[in-house]
Amino acid sequence: MNKVPVLEIFGPTIQGEGMVVGRKTMFVRTAGCDYSCAWCDSKFTWDGSAKEDINMMTADSVFQRLKELGDNQFDHVTISGGNPALLKSIDGLIEILHANEIEVALETQGSRWQDWFVKIDDLTISPKPPSSKMKTDWSVLDDIFEQLKEHQRLNHTSLKIVVFDQEDLHFAEELHQRYPAIAFYLQVGNEDVEEAGTDQIASRLLNSYQWLIDQVMSNGRLNRVHVLPQLHTLVWGNKRGV
Amino acid sequence: MNKVPVLEIFGPTIQGEGMVVGRKTMFVRTAGCDYSCAWCDSKFTWDGSAKEDINMMTADSVFQRLKELGDNQFDHVTISGGNPALLKSIDGLIEILHANEIEVALETQGSRWQDWFVKIDDLTISPKPPSSKMKTDWSVLDDIFEQLKEHQRLNHTSLKIVVFDQEDLHFAEELHQRYPAIAFYLQVGNEDVEEAGTDQIASRLLNSYQWLIDQVMSNGRLNRVHVLPQLHTLVWGNKRGV
Repeated sequence: MNKVPVLEIFGPTIQGEGMVVGRKTMFVRTAGCDYSCAWCDSKFTWDGSAKEDINMMTADSVFQRLKELGDNQFDHVTISGGNPALLKSIDGLIEILHANEIEVALETQGSRWQDWFVKIDDLTISPKPPSSKMKTDWSVLDDIFEQLKEHQRLNHTSLKIVVFDQEDLHFAEELHQRYPAIAFYLQVGNEDVEEAGTDQIASRLLNSYQWLIDQVMSNGRLNRVHVLPQLHTLVWGNKRGV
Repeated sequence: MNKVPVLEIFGPTIQGEGMVVGRKTMFVRTAGCDYSCAWCDSKFTWDGSAKEDINMMTADSVFQRLKELGDNQFDHVTISGGNPALLKSIDGLIEILHANEIEVALETQGSRWQDWFVKIDDLTISPKPPSSKMKTDWSVLDDIFEQLKEHQRLNHTSLKIVVFDQEDLHFAEELHQRYPAIAFYLQVGNEDVEEAGTDQIASRLLNSYQWLIDQVMSNGRLNRVHVLPQLHTLVWGNKRGV
């Protein structure tokens, strides 16, 4: 059986972002990314610093670990990264989770297609805005949405854009215009992913959130949208594994 | 044309709670309620204190006012109260909004049925837990979900329960067990709806939110659920009209 490079398994906790914000879930974080976003909050997944923590795990052993941690207290698993869409082997994990009546969410930037995308219950595609210093390959992204449409998966799919500034907001407008049928989530950027004090982080993020709300409310090109903060960062700051 | 007793029309702003949390929306708040919850955050809708602010408005004039305020910067309207389910006349308002390609959300405690429930795009039924001092009429609630099911509206419907304490949590378990197919949202109660300092309110609410998360994460009877704070209260405190 093909193995998955796993960096973290934790939960149950809440999903702090996007289309199923607040959902009780477990997290599986895979190693490796084709991007290196300037403000990435999980740099350890790709910068080599956590190389020795990578576990090559079968789908079975991931499922066993999830049950050890979450027992009978979950029915939803979120696969995040890094970019889990680099891994063909996620397919087996989805299969075993579904066989156990567990729903599966996945987050990826939309730089690669995998056939198992059509099995994901809550698929978040999160192209990276200019502030990330990354470039979106529009033909890959177009193809992803084309395939999801063909397989009638658009109602299981959302777009999520992190917004730090006006340029990011403009990128969000462009995306929403290009894929108007896709549920659209705007998310406040976290300007300091190293800061330690939870209260200060919450206060800063709520200020940025209010700025983003103001921007979107007066923008007629962003109507059918959701504007959200990261709930887990409001509650736990920049702590890992919660 | 039948008129609607309106207390507030405001927006665009975000929906701070529940199934479409973060959604850009306008609000229409109706007057009158069959409940008088101990911790109601909109007592002015039923305690007589805002009696003179009630406007008897036609659906047309509500729509005009929404367009005046929101121009072309919205495509979603949330009808809240009080209990808008007391009003047959909401039907006309839904009609005119839908005719203008505007989606309609509604919040009610589930104490009354209205035929226009089946037209609502995002219907939140929010039975009140013991801390409210209100009593749920289970036969009315059963009938509401029966009718929504018959009209194939369950995927447009959610349950939302405000939780202050263990007893409320137990009530939530009971509800989730009774209607397991309905999308289920647990919401942190706001213990002081008069407090003025936004920072203190946010800090208090985030602590309560963390408590509620902890409770739900270790509870195997509450798995297929979402746990959320009130985002508008985190951002704006107890201010009205935002």
